[in-house]
Order: sequence, then structure tokens, then C-alpha cells
Amino acid sequence: MSMNQRLRANRHDPLHHLQKSQIAKFAKGDVIYESASPETRLYLVLSGRVQVFHSDNGGQRVLLQIVEPEGFFGETGMWGAAPPLSHTAVAATQTELMSWTSQEVEAQILREPSLGLALIEELCERCTLLRERIFALSVLPNRARLMVALLQLGDMIGEDTETGAVRLRGLTHQLIADYTGTSREIVTMELNRLRRLSAIGYARAYIDLHKDALASELRNEGQPSFCPGAGLTHRAAG
Amino acid sequence: MSMNQRLRANRHDPLHHLQKSQIAKFAKGDVIYESASPETRLYLVLSGRVQVFHSDNGGQRVLLQIVEPEGFFGETGMWGAAPPLSHTAVAATQTELMSWTSQEVEAQILREPSLGLALIEELCERCTLLRERIFALSVLPNRARLMVALLQLGDMIGEDTETGAVRLRGLTHQLIADYTGTSREIVTMELNRLRRLSAIGYARAYIDLHKDALASELRNEGQPSFCPGAGLTHRAAG
Repeated sequence: MSMNQRLRANRHDPLHHLQKSQIAKFAKGDVIYESASPETRLYLVLSGRVQVFHSDNGGQRVLLQIVEPEGFFGETGMWGAAPPLSHTAVAATQTELMSWTSQEVEAQILREPSLGLALIEELCERCTLLRERIFALSVLPNRARLMVALLQLGDMIGEDTETGAVRLRGLTHQLIADYTGTSREIVTMELNRLRRLSAIGYARAYIDLHKDALASELRNEGQPSFCPGAGLTHRAAG
Repeated sequence: MSMNQRLRANRHDPLHHLQKSQIAKFAKGDVIYESASPETRLYLVLSGRVQVFHSDNGGQRVLLQIVEPEGFFGETGMWGAAPPLSHTAVAATQTELMSWTSQEVEAQILREPSLGLALIEELCERCTLLRERIFALSVLPNRARLMVALLQLGDMIGEDTETGAVRLRGLTHQLIADYTGTSREIVTMELNRLRRLSAIGYARAYIDLHKDALASELRNEGQPSFCPGAGLTHRAAG
């Protein structure tokens, strides 16, 4: 159970309200939707992991969202008044999804308004995390930005280990770069540095965050307000 | 009528559903809420303008949101599971607001689920704009980033002029810097450059955007996917 799932336990839960739909299965690397086929469904992850990217025709891309079981995606394409963006959703691993059209979700909300409340809570948390990313991107230099990104990813998809670390699975250096708005080379260099400082540990398949040591490094970088406990921790997925 | 207001005409409108509350008045510069007093109300702007900032104890700040009449703010503090952030909402001019507690809004949504739908649409548009800001902050150099920020601000608060320009009122160079994640000096330098190129015009109280010329400058900077018509225009306020 991730932090994200634990957090949700106390709130309105969209899962209780949405009627079951057919289950669609995707293999690792499968594209669930892309800009050419604008997303017009609300998706729920049952198992696996989905990554949502924003890319432009110049080939630049940013990792917007990592969605784990019980998480939603696709909603902004459904309800935004604007034309769809260049978003791509990819199965990061073997993944099972349920999905609904906007008409189906709207009809269910009108029948059962607490589904609306549950989605509002989800969206508010998403906005909060997006705003924190904007703040970090706007004011932080690369080094601190990467540390804050690791903490944010820890809140999104981290699992507690027995040793008290927070484990991030399945993130390549390129993916972390896509999330952080920096290059893979910088990510590799900075992760090596953080490993030497014992702020993180890593193996092929995961990165372990030692949050106290990371926080102390962030203070060294003059960014105490981004430390765990200062309002950035235990946030749900964006 | 701003673009923002025009866009809304076709959608579910929260205003139709929310019961009237008392009207609170604020003078220019008044703080509506700040981090010390976490926002626990949903606010609706009746007249004037509100600016929402995220700041840290080091004094760095980012302009998150500019809210004009018929726009909402404060909702993320109400429904997020996380502790409140360092957000400050300030009246940018003489402003009138209505506001509701989360209990009041939730009770109204349960009675009238289309209010829930209307808020979901608002929040989805907000997420879309926030994601575009993240993309711009992640991949664009300063010069292109400022041009994209001007276009985004144009969608948020711009007014059409008779000459076909989009007018931004009441934005200082510092405010634009706070929105863009850059310094006031860079904003001033780049605005001067854009004025020489006739991509913008400005007087003391406003900046006029000439969108075609701005788009052509963005193409010159190698960023055609950020041009108006490429998915970034006519978006509602974030």
C-alpha cells in the first residue's frame, strides 16, 4: 500500500461510486491514448502503472503524471473547454484499466452526487501538486529542483521499506529528467552525488530515498521550505 | 467580457447553483487569506481582481493565479488532504467576494449535483493550464517562456481591443516575473525587445499583445507548438 493509497482511506472514494466497466489490458509500452486520438474517457488504473506525458512536435517531453492502482487519469481532456493537448498516456508496465465516457460519468454524478465530491477532492489534490511543481520549477536551481522532485515522486509512488527509506520503483534517469525539466546527464550526476552523501541509495530496479538526509541536503542548499514536513510531503498523485 | 467569460457561456456554470452569501469588500492590497490562516473557504470574485501567490520563508514567490469576476479560488485548501501551503490571496484592486465553507458547498453539491459537475469542469481547466505552465517552465528558455507566459496571461485576463490586440491591464513587470519564474530585469529587457519587434505595445496601465506577431516570434525561437492555435489559446484562468 503506497502513501498515496493510505492517504485516500479517509476521504470520499470515487471507486465506491463508479459502476464497473469492462477491463482493458495493456502490455508494457502500449500507448493508451495520444494527442491524435484525444482522450475522451476517464480512466481508472486497476493494476500496473501509467505515465502521462506532454510533448511537442520538437520532441521535447515532460512527465506530467504517474498513475498507480486506484488512480485516475484522462479527466482534463474530458471536461476542459479547450482543444486537447499533446498528451500521451503509456502503460509503464503490464496494466489493467477501466474507463468511462464523459456522458457515463456525468450521468452517474447526477444520480450520485458524492461521486462528484470525490472527483473534486482528487482534482484539488492534483492542482496542489501541480502548483508545487510550478513553484519548484520557478524558483529552484537544478540541484535543489531534483531533490524536491525526488520527494514529490516519493509522495506519488513511493513505498515504505523496513529500513525507513521510501522506495521508488521503475524510474529511469530519463524519466526523472522528464519529470524535473532537466537532462538525463544532470540527473545521473546529481543522483551519484546524493548517493555519496547517503541521501539516497539505488539499485537497478529502484531508488531508496532517505528523507531526513535529503531534507538536510535541501537545507544546505538554502531551501528549508521544501523539506519534508514543510508542506510538501504525503501528497497524492498529480 | 473577457475571453475567459465568453468561454464559460457554453458550460455548466457554478454561479447558477451556488446560493448567495454575504458580500465581503476588500481594498487594493488587502490580504484575503495567508498561510497563517489556511484558506478553508471557496471564494467567488464578484468584482475586482485577486492574485494568489505561493511563497516560501526565503521570500521567493510565484504568482499562481489571477482571478477575475466569476472566477473561483481557495478550493485546493478546502478539499486537499495535505496540510495547507504557503499561499496568499491579495486583492489586486478594489474587490468584492462571496465565500462558502466546505460544509456549505458539499451540502449544496449533494442537493444539486450539477454544481459538482460545474466545479469539476473548472478544476479540469485549471489543471490543464497548470500543466501547460509546467511544460513551458520545463522545456523553454527564458525568452520563449516569457512570450508563452504573456499568451497564457492573455487567455486568463486579456480583453480584446478594437484594433485586434489583446489587452492585459494592471500587470507590473514584477508580477509578470512572478508568473514566469524569472526576474523583473529580464522581463523589462524582453518586453522592450518585443515592443521593438511590434509584437507588443505598452503604456503605463496596460500591455497590448499582438498575437500574430508574438506567434511569429515564437516560431523564430523554434517553439511553434506554443503558438496560438497550437492548443495554448483561449484557456480559462488557472
